[in-house]
Amino acid sequence: MINRIGERTLALTDKPRVVGFGSAVGKKEGEGPLEKWFDKIYTDTTMGGETWEKAEAALQKKTVTLALESAGLDAADVDCAFAGDLLNQCVSSSYGLRDLGIPFLGQYGACSTVAQTIAMASLCVESGAADVAAAVTSSHFCSAERQFRYPLQYGGQRTPTAQWTVTGSGSALLAAYQNGAFRGIGGKLGENGINMKRQIGVESVCIGKIIDMGITDANNMGAAMAGAAADTIYRYLNDTAASPNDFDLIVTGDLGRVGSDLLYELLGKENVDITQNHKDCGLLIFDTETQDVHAGGSGCGCSASVLCSYIMKRMLKREINSVLFVATGALMSPTIVQQGESIPGIAHAVHFVNCAE
Amino acid sequence: MINRIGERTLALTDKPRVVGFGSAVGKKEGEGPLEKWFDKIYTDTTMGGETWEKAEAALQKKTVTLALESAGLDAADVDCAFAGDLLNQCVSSSYGLRDLGIPFLGQYGACSTVAQTIAMASLCVESGAADVAAAVTSSHFCSAERQFRYPLQYGGQRTPTAQWTVTGSGSALLAAYQNGAFRGIGGKLGENGINMKRQIGVESVCIGKIIDMGITDANNMGAAMAGAAADTIYRYLNDTAASPNDFDLIVTGDLGRVGSDLLYELLGKENVDITQNHKDCGLLIFDTETQDVHAGGSGCGCSASVLCSYIMKRMLKREINSVLFVATGALMSPTIVQQGESIPGIAHAVHFVNCAE
Repeated sequence: MINRIGERTLALTDKPRVVGFGSAVGKKEGEGPLEKWFDKIYTDTTMGGETWEKAEAALQKKTVTLALESAGLDAADVDCAFAGDLLNQCVSSSYGLRDLGIPFLGQYGACSTVAQTIAMASLCVESGAADVAAAVTSSHFCSAERQFRYPLQYGGQRTPTAQWTVTGSGSALLAAYQNGAFRGIGGKLGENGINMKRQIGVESVCIGKIIDMGITDANNMGAAMAGAAADTIYRYLNDTAASPNDFDLIVTGDLGRVGSDLLYELLGKENVDITQNHKDCGLLIFDTETQDVHAGGSGCGCSASVLCSYIMKRMLKREINSVLFVATGALMSPTIVQQGESIPGIAHAVHFVNCAE
Repeated sequence: MINRIGERTLALTDKPRVVGFGSAVGKKEGEGPLEKWFDKIYTDTTMGGETWEKAEAALQKKTVTLALESAGLDAADVDCAFAGDLLNQCVSSSYGLRDLGIPFLGQYGACSTVAQTIAMASLCVESGAADVAAAVTSSHFCSAERQFRYPLQYGGQRTPTAQWTVTGSGSALLAAYQNGAFRGIGGKLGENGINMKRQIGVESVCIGKIIDMGITDANNMGAAMAGAAADTIYRYLNDTAASPNDFDLIVTGDLGRVGSDLLYELLGKENVDITQNHKDCGLLIFDTETQDVHAGGSGCGCSASVLCSYIMKRMLKREINSVLFVATGALMSPTIVQQGESIPGIAHAVHFVNCAE
């Protein structure tokens, strides 16, 4: 059942379970601190394909396939897929999932799409609209650079506040769990008896509002998104009467260094201190000292690949048991920024908890 | 409650109600056969603004405002907005709704987004996640031409199969209705006693699969989308054991003339004949004989503006009482079509019914 709590939080009383997940990244990400956590690392930027856009689509297909394998499910077992990416018209998602035959609902919230797809998939199974729903997102450094910034060949200088778009994808499968059993395809999910399939649950989600901080610098996305992150975190803590220390980890999507600092400042004004247990996926995935990524990683593939590897695998080990995942997005296009508009941000939150054995 | 029927259909037992709707279009659309049905017709392509993109965003804000006014609600009464458009990174939606303060979930399904947003809003209120949810979509001839095709100044020739992107937007508000009363903000919705507020209900929705017919001509979108329309209509009829004649109207989004003919042919192969009560929004909105639009209208604003004016107003008059609305989308980008890819289509269906007085 879905219970509305406070202003904007939705509690999912049966806690939809993450029954499978998968991650795949590119070479640079595979050279970073999280190397050992990823399921697949590609060293070729086109993944053996013809173009970066097709490679990004292939990344999505790969992580959905990995998630299905980890769950012991087939594409035909999935009732609905929520997918998104940063490319114009979200083609990584539509071409990536084209051959799988899963009912498809494209989502767009820039980099917040990671949390948005998981929130939608969770609501979908909790409401009875699906027994199993997939969530998948991706980004690719090369396809993003030429679309949002400059041709790679041009070799444009990057500003200190710029972030490095992650080449990567992450996918998770959410399944309905009620009265001690999986609904619908329960037998199939239960047959190999792996406990992980009912371990990680979605406790609640918080849908974000569009927040515009007046930032007009498209090379300072972290600042553009920090206000939205602060708004959603503050709202979630208030709605649920929680304190930051109630979580083992509060993890933002890709604020990077600049955005994270601004987030602390904004929450500080509300007397909320998350510095003790906050991490940012954009700072986890790269070593910002040695990997020349300036303010950190970004992109739909950043928090997706970090969540669906490092975070979920650490939850499975029960090293962390309660994670507030807050993915942030900058809802701009190059065209409208060139027209002088500021960049609005948005952040959606998903609260993952480890359920009892 | 949400009941799954057959393979892909979701029946909404309480029938979320359309409690408000609004439409706004441009000059050419206002000169077409549906002139008298639209709430607002703009004769200036920038709507008094600076650019076509900002004008399109303003169109979305306008129709959401019109929908709120018709419902007697404020933006603060809306728990969630599902919005989408055709522009890169869906900026008409994010900038259009930026100032309204409504929790925001961007949707992308090309022109199928119209049905997708309504389906998501309906599922959202039926599941208890929201009491009132908004659905809004838009397109703009000028912003679409320069993004998908050529600069307008270039004056490129249009092929006979090409469709004319509608400048327009449509918005609908869905509210939860249970046990003879609106949930949550019932008092506010009921206070002026207008019966329309509980008249039009969403009986069920059917989520589409990605269907690729192998079309590579970006000037023949109707053909690219016809397969998806046929698949979803066929699936819906089978899932619900309905026949085409059970509906007063089966209306597709924007297949145009070429796509509609292909749809009849594809359904004919399955012995399904919808020709007696099928209309296409792309052929309703323009007079294809005199308005030089070639195969008909298209764009997210096409079926949105037709649905949220002509169709819903005729339902309110009870001239039509059961409408299967099937919006179709071509999930391509110019970039990926230039890379030689075919154009996958998708179609989502929403079944509207008039409820008892």
